[in-house]
Amino acid sequence: MEQTKSDVDLHRRRLLAAGAGGAAAGLAGFSPASLAQAAGAKPLPPFAAFKDASRVIVHSASGIETQRSAFGTSGITGQEILFVRNNVSPPNASVVANPDAWQIEFDGVANPRTLSVADLKRMGLASVSMVLQCSGNGRGFFGHKAAGSQWKVGAAGNTLWSGVPVKAVVAELGGLREGIRYMTSTGGETIPPGIDAKKVMVERSVPWTAQDEAILAWELNGQPIPLAHGGPLRLIIPGYFGVNNVKYIKRLAFTAQETGANIQSSGYRVRPVGVKGATSQPSMWEMNLKSFITHPAGGGQPLRAGLVQVYGVAFSGGSPVNAIEVSIDGGRDWQAARFFGPNLGRYAWRNFVLPVRLASGAYEITSRAIADDGEVQPELRVENERGYAHNGWRDHAVKVTVA
Amino acid sequence: MEQTKSDVDLHRRRLLAAGAGGAAAGLAGFSPASLAQAAGAKPLPPFAAFKDASRVIVHSASGIETQRSAFGTSGITGQEILFVRNNVSPPNASVVANPDAWQIEFDGVANPRTLSVADLKRMGLASVSMVLQCSGNGRGFFGHKAAGSQWKVGAAGNTLWSGVPVKAVVAELGGLREGIRYMTSTGGETIPPGIDAKKVMVERSVPWTAQDEAILAWELNGQPIPLAHGGPLRLIIPGYFGVNNVKYIKRLAFTAQETGANIQSSGYRVRPVGVKGATSQPSMWEMNLKSFITHPAGGGQPLRAGLVQVYGVAFSGGSPVNAIEVSIDGGRDWQAARFFGPNLGRYAWRNFVLPVRLASGAYEITSRAIADDGEVQPELRVENERGYAHNGWRDHAVKVTVA
Repeated sequence: MEQTKSDVDLHRRRLLAAGAGGAAAGLAGFSPASLAQAAGAKPLPPFAAFKDASRVIVHSASGIETQRSAFGTSGITGQEILFVRNNVSPPNASVVANPDAWQIEFDGVANPRTLSVADLKRMGLASVSMVLQCSGNGRGFFGHKAAGSQWKVGAAGNTLWSGVPVKAVVAELGGLREGIRYMTSTGGETIPPGIDAKKVMVERSVPWTAQDEAILAWELNGQPIPLAHGGPLRLIIPGYFGVNNVKYIKRLAFTAQETGANIQSSGYRVRPVGVKGATSQPSMWEMNLKSFITHPAGGGQPLRAGLVQVYGVAFSGGSPVNAIEVSIDGGRDWQAARFFGPNLGRYAWRNFVLPVRLASGAYEITSRAIADDGEVQPELRVENERGYAHNGWRDHAVKVTVA
Repeated sequence: MEQTKSDVDLHRRRLLAAGAGGAAAGLAGFSPASLAQAAGAKPLPPFAAFKDASRVIVHSASGIETQRSAFGTSGITGQEILFVRNNVSPPNASVVANPDAWQIEFDGVANPRTLSVADLKRMGLASVSMVLQCSGNGRGFFGHKAAGSQWKVGAAGNTLWSGVPVKAVVAELGGLREGIRYMTSTGGETIPPGIDAKKVMVERSVPWTAQDEAILAWELNGQPIPLAHGGPLRLIIPGYFGVNNVKYIKRLAFTAQETGANIQSSGYRVRPVGVKGATSQPSMWEMNLKSFITHPAGGGQPLRAGLVQVYGVAFSGGSPVNAIEVSIDGGRDWQAARFFGPNLGRYAWRNFVLPVRLASGAYEITSRAIADDGEVQPELRVENERGYAHNGWRDHAVKVTVA
């Protein structure tokens, strides 16, 4: 959402509170956190204290990024490193103590009703693997100082979610009303009194057809969803940018109009630099075609010459990834790389690898994904005010020195 | 392996040491552990202190089981609940501090050599999802008090491993010698002086063809393998029982004969009750066809009447699982259930679900898997001295009361 004055204030209050809590957690002996703090890094906020501080970058109490070198090669991003991005402070942690008691209101259906998570668990069960990615992932590569966390590659992760298909709930509630065009979801954050709710509330509308694959999830990577990732209940829309996957969802309504909340009407819109957000601009819905290298990750010691396994991840919210190419000379020449490991489905990312023999020298290593429909991941970013949807392969390149 | 006198002594020493450490860890404030201990449960051993004590069963310092209700529905078993089984105390934890430095000796190839994990990481990269299961999983259902941990269903988990294909290393070392029949692997445990190494060492032989899909893994579920699960380097043979997936592997040799270590020659053999182990009996290699219900998990409060999602997992080390059936009346009637979630490959388990409407009464819920080759999971266990390879659906049933 746009950084309104009140929003910034909310974040600042939270950050100050988290600073104290985080330091106390560090003293309790969790050594990676202690080390990270000793090195001058920001502390993990209490609600994300379970993160591995040695493998994340803490931008703020509401912005935690996975380090490029931390993704590993298993295909799934563990909760201990998965990025966190909150537009508003989460509700009190007590809401995850008894997940089954959480309530959600349904509207825009024949028989509107409020249901508990316990009710939902009886209605159906599905599981999906998908890339969760912040709209601003890659913002740190833009040149115009776009406002917001300066993410590089790590505001994304591949995750497994289980819950009830939205369609199963809709069927149980008698089907959709007529004239529906959007699925509109509201987060369960507490908006402090005195703040105009419309300006800060997390309420997002997506095309109603997104219900086809959407689930209301209570499980992330096999565990009850923690507060930091939207527990007790999160809307999951495979292929859609993170903001649409509303956390602590308390209302799901099928509506004729998009919500008028700022986060929808002016926030999360792609527009030219310097232009204000408006409903006429594209909303951050489906993710575009993207890939990036995770090894070598750049920085640190020069690599030893010889055979190196260059690997990374490729994904798309639209036409599925079909092939992947790697360049070690900044995009002059390209070689086909190989996907490896389980294929977790079209909304998941795929690991790829290319063995290359490197002599001493300097290299600029990057990747470009190719989709089923023939689209090729572009070289350059599309400049835009908020630094959204960066999938240009040039900025995502890793600079490597081989000794 | 067989419980020799010296082996039992090793375990006892470890257990005593772990008792003190575990209690100290509990005092440090990790509340699930503290709660579990307050309830009289055994403490987690220090090398497994990262486990979620509220979702595992600690049989001993070398035997930790996942609770039936803890598996979730994502398809992957997290490290925090994955079972642990050690035949011998693990090496000192310092070996995982710098995984790249760990060394492994290769023999039975044209050019025998010792390589470090850093070397292996340059040679190739693969990732596989597979069920890791102790040979004795289900031992707790046998009637003759088979020696060993009394596992029910939770000495199994579905996991993701990344490493180098064994075949890639063999190719790099000039290929196999002639006359090879086995791949023989040795664990890096320290055998205390005064003990006959052959009696306690973890050295396992499997048919040499197992190399085709085997990997030498340094990553489990996206993280460096912890000591409790065999880090820094573990042999992974998809479809084979746990014991063959040698932890802290320090030697991999292609051999003409099976190793003479007790764990191979007399241990992990299927034989009639009361009969001693011998090389003429089947060795615990490929896993058989199996499934079990994970929800409802039985115990606790009666269920509320109405629609219930009955779910569980199905897997096989041989012909892949093709279909799954569920019975709610102890095996009189069967209904086809549905697989859901990503298909992680033939050695992984698949989640299945069947929605059933339950009125008040008593139910006995169980499942049976059907393989590609037509094999059906059997009703009854095969009685055997050590309580291995239990895949009978009757014993795996869950008794449920609906109010």
